[in-house]
Amino acid sequence: MTLLISGWVALDDLETPFERVERVLGGPASYAALAASLFTDVRVLAGVGDDFPAAFRDRLDRPNVDLAGLTTHPGETSRWGARYGYDMNSRETLFTVVGVNETWAPALPPGWEDSTTVFLAAAHPVVQREIIASLPKARASLVDTILFYIESALADVRKTMSIATFATVNESEARMISGVASITRASRKLIADGAQRLIVKLGEYGAAYTSGSDYFIVPGFPLEEIADPTGAGDTFGGAFMAYLDTAPDLSDAEIRKAMVYGSAVASYCVEGIGTSRLETLTRAEVEDRYRAFRRLTHFEVPD
Amino acid sequence: MTLLISGWVALDDLETPFERVERVLGGPASYAALAASLFTDVRVLAGVGDDFPAAFRDRLDRPNVDLAGLTTHPGETSRWGARYGYDMNSRETLFTVVGVNETWAPALPPGWEDSTTVFLAAAHPVVQREIIASLPKARASLVDTILFYIESALADVRKTMSIATFATVNESEARMISGVASITRASRKLIADGAQRLIVKLGEYGAAYTSGSDYFIVPGFPLEEIADPTGAGDTFGGAFMAYLDTAPDLSDAEIRKAMVYGSAVASYCVEGIGTSRLETLTRAEVEDRYRAFRRLTHFEVPD
Repeated sequence: MTLLISGWVALDDLETPFERVERVLGGPASYAALAASLFTDVRVLAGVGDDFPAAFRDRLDRPNVDLAGLTTHPGETSRWGARYGYDMNSRETLFTVVGVNETWAPALPPGWEDSTTVFLAAAHPVVQREIIASLPKARASLVDTILFYIESALADVRKTMSIATFATVNESEARMISGVASITRASRKLIADGAQRLIVKLGEYGAAYTSGSDYFIVPGFPLEEIADPTGAGDTFGGAFMAYLDTAPDLSDAEIRKAMVYGSAVASYCVEGIGTSRLETLTRAEVEDRYRAFRRLTHFEVPD
Repeated sequence: MTLLISGWVALDDLETPFERVERVLGGPASYAALAASLFTDVRVLAGVGDDFPAAFRDRLDRPNVDLAGLTTHPGETSRWGARYGYDMNSRETLFTVVGVNETWAPALPPGWEDSTTVFLAAAHPVVQREIIASLPKARASLVDTILFYIESALADVRKTMSIATFATVNESEARMISGVASITRASRKLIADGAQRLIVKLGEYGAAYTSGSDYFIVPGFPLEEIADPTGAGDTFGGAFMAYLDTAPDLSDAEIRKAMVYGSAVASYCVEGIGTSRLETLTRAEVEDRYRAFRRLTHFEVPD
């Protein structure tokens, strides 16, 4: 079983009220790969520039992570800078440098066609579809998107959402794509319009899943302090798909477990700046938090 | 077992994107009493003006609701007007007429000293403490507050929170009273500062409970459409305390059930404008939604 992850690997400048770092390892694929490697074998399909530090490649190079698809190209690694407000809920994007991702196109290394699951971080929806089409053995796919593609390629975003097994959106994206204000109605409309299964990321309030028939909400974990929210959504996505890569089936029960595993790993991610906490995280810690989510949400039903 | 409810009974003007009504039955005590009467015997301690319609008193006058404490005074019934934005998350208070509540003071009808639980909607914290002190047999109390008292009587708000068994606050109130931005840390600080048990109302995202040792979150119910959010918090409080009035003990397990019952009734409340949905709600419907909350949040724990 192997999860293919594609998306930007980038260099991030991050500024929170407590800390400021420059050119740290970032990008959705980095977060997703570190999270996913706690559960299953991972393949990373991404392009970086010739300025990408060897030390950063080493940090992604875990025993069960295959970096044959992490290719180096002439030019600059993608870069992103962001600043968070005092309560961590407001984020200002300071700059985006697309770099080598202007021209990077996915090319599967030999043998990667047998990947069993795939997580596609935000990218052009046509590229996302091409990757899904190149993986005939994948039993499940998850696609994420961002405002840029919703504004510039909405029809393709919708088409890709209908092909993928799962799509993740945040609340404002759900409203924009559906044209409906109520999140519950927006979710239902996206399913009616073709999405197979939808996960609405609620930030500090958790995440909501719907297939049209099943509906599941996992709340945000009550953390004492959030060091840096960067990458939480991609961490969720990586862990969610990585758990499902190992699950016996795609039943509602397994999807619910994957929602909790994704939330558990994401709740650790935000405890450190950048990828720092993910890099030290163990599977035993993830299981501890999974059980903590159970204690957080469990209640008895009267007879 | 009897729950005493005190707070404003008022006449509300409500405006949503879909509907507009004037001088409808409102006020925290009305919502709480209608909600609580689904579970236990209720006593209403509140003052109205001589303009309060007999038909509104009749709508509160259920078989298990004692209105001996709903007294009429010369002058105007309290009034409140509010307008909601298109997604129901933004609310603008249009006016507040204090009316007879300028001078109303609680006076227990004979025999009401034996009330077993008490819900105190927003009022001056000194008045709230006086009512709690007048009920020696109450095994549990819940106090709510509003911005006005946090700004004008913070020390007394804190003191009342330390005397009550439960206190409800919304997120911004939790931050204001504690002076801490993180809701989790704010909750912990309020407990450290003397609150016994705290419920943070998260609006459409549900509610979080903490006693310092136990932590429980119930998400918001995914409603297709919200007709009017007015009264949801007081409905929650009334149903929460009313369930606990009938519960065998105040264990964490019973408090968790009360959180779900409160959320279930509140989720119905917002389906109609004003108190309209509460007035037709049945206990069987509440039990249905309780089980729906279970389906919404349940997940298995791996061995």
